Amino acid sequence: MTENNPTAILIIIGNEILSGRTRDANLSFIGQRCEELGIELIEARVVMDEEHAIIDAVNTSRDQCDYVFTTGGIGPTHDDITSASIARAVGIKLERNPDAVAAMDAYYPPGKLNEARLRMADMPVGAVLIDNPVSGAPGFQVQNVFVLPGVPSIMQAMFDGITDRLTGGLPVITVSIKTDLTEGSIAPKLAAIQTMCPDVSIGSYPFFKAGMLGVNLVLRSTDENNLQSAIDKVKSLILELNGRMFLTDN
Amino acid sequence: MTENNPTAILIIIGNEILSGRTRDANLSFIGQRCEELGIELIEARVVMDEEHAIIDAVNTSRDQCDYVFTTGGIGPTHDDITSASIARAVGIKLERNPDAVAAMDAYYPPGKLNEARLRMADMPVGAVLIDNPVSGAPGFQVQNVFVLPGVPSIMQAMFDGITDRLTGGLPVITVSIKTDLTEGSIAPKLAAIQTMCPDVSIGSYPFFKAGMLGVNLVLRSTDENNLQSAIDKVKSLILELNGRMFLTDN
Repeated sequence: MTENNPTAILIIIGNEILSGRTRDANLSFIGQRCEELGIELIEARVVMDEEHAIIDAVNTSRDQCDYVFTTGGIGPTHDDITSASIARAVGIKLERNPDAVAAMDAYYPPGKLNEARLRMADMPVGAVLIDNPVSGAPGFQVQNVFVLPGVPSIMQAMFDGITDRLTGGLPVITVSIKTDLTEGSIAPKLAAIQTMCPDVSIGSYPFFKAGMLGVNLVLRSTDENNLQSAIDKVKSLILELNGRMFLTDN
Repeated sequence: MTENNPTAILIIIGNEILSGRTRDANLSFIGQRCEELGIELIEARVVMDEEHAIIDAVNTSRDQCDYVFTTGGIGPTHDDITSASIARAVGIKLERNPDAVAAMDAYYPPGKLNEARLRMADMPVGAVLIDNPVSGAPGFQVQNVFVLPGVPSIMQAMFDGITDRLTGGLPVITVSIKTDLTEGSIAPKLAAIQTMCPDVSIGSYPFFKAGMLGVNLVLRSTDENNLQSAIDKVKSLILELNGRMFLTDN
């Protein structure tokens, strides 16, 4: 369906996500932005704040896709080891980036830019800065790896600043059709529709909530006509099986 | 800190999570359960509903840790390819498991157990069933891989049924200390505390919400005395820097 679109992998760095204490919010934002940009997010990995884990994830990912995004681990504390680990992963020396120092110097009140904060300006030589309009310290891009912070509001503001560096393909159009039919009852004919519409990806996601049981059918395609043809077939199937249906664009 | 504990990797299977449309809830549940069980969750991967992606993630993961958990993709529709992909990953033939058929036969009203639903009983030969107390169709365990559904309420009920098959280590005790100090101001002395307390993992997570700016310090250890000693040092540091502090066990 989107096999000619550029691809991306997201690496979420942080023990607090793996411990279950903090729920990640960055995958959902970046996943949606990628769809809008026509970039296919093919995997997301959540890894520990440990050098070997970050290096392994970055090096496995950067050859497998067009863009790697990382979130987390670029603050001023001892557990912020993302920048140094990525420098090692790409085999480029870490330096104190003068433009990053200047950006932080402009942000912090006099006397507040201490050594711990200055560590946030340590980046691989030749890194291209990613502007931080919220809290001063920039992220950076090295080769096809984009290094972003973990705090969602800051990450989002910074992600919007890099979209002009990303070459997208055809945006994916998505339509969800919710029905009170069960997966088991629609499965055979839904599989037949998927076979008839190879350019549309049809996902089926059961739900059990608010006393209602049913399935959310998500149709995605980069081609509007093919998508409409699949939507019509799915609607006919639901009517044929006497199901109720709730159509939403999203 | 927990380096002698058994380890686990979670593989979340589903395009809907990568598209950002559905926010995963299973990592947070399984991460917390692992901590309680004394199992270290060392990575989580979100992969597409595609055979090569599932096989690659399962085969990379199962040699790297003691337990692999997968969620998603075991329903009755055409996009549910987890069981067949895992059978291929471990190199074991897929068969229609008679015990799984019996469990589903007992669950569904007469005449409702159609071929699509029966596909949910297809598992690698020799798989050990994971009972589904909510919606009939069992999950399964093959070698060190535990195959669970994606719907959180069902996954959670099934996960609680496998904890007696998991050998844990020492449970991790976690204490969070929230303060209105910023990361940059506490970073140098916090790093010194981390060096003095190598058996305690000290994570620092900035937050910006509800008009408040500060940092959440998360201290984790399997040893209560070491943990208490680190807590005392962190509290003294916050007082020394005139910060407010909010202590929470979680």
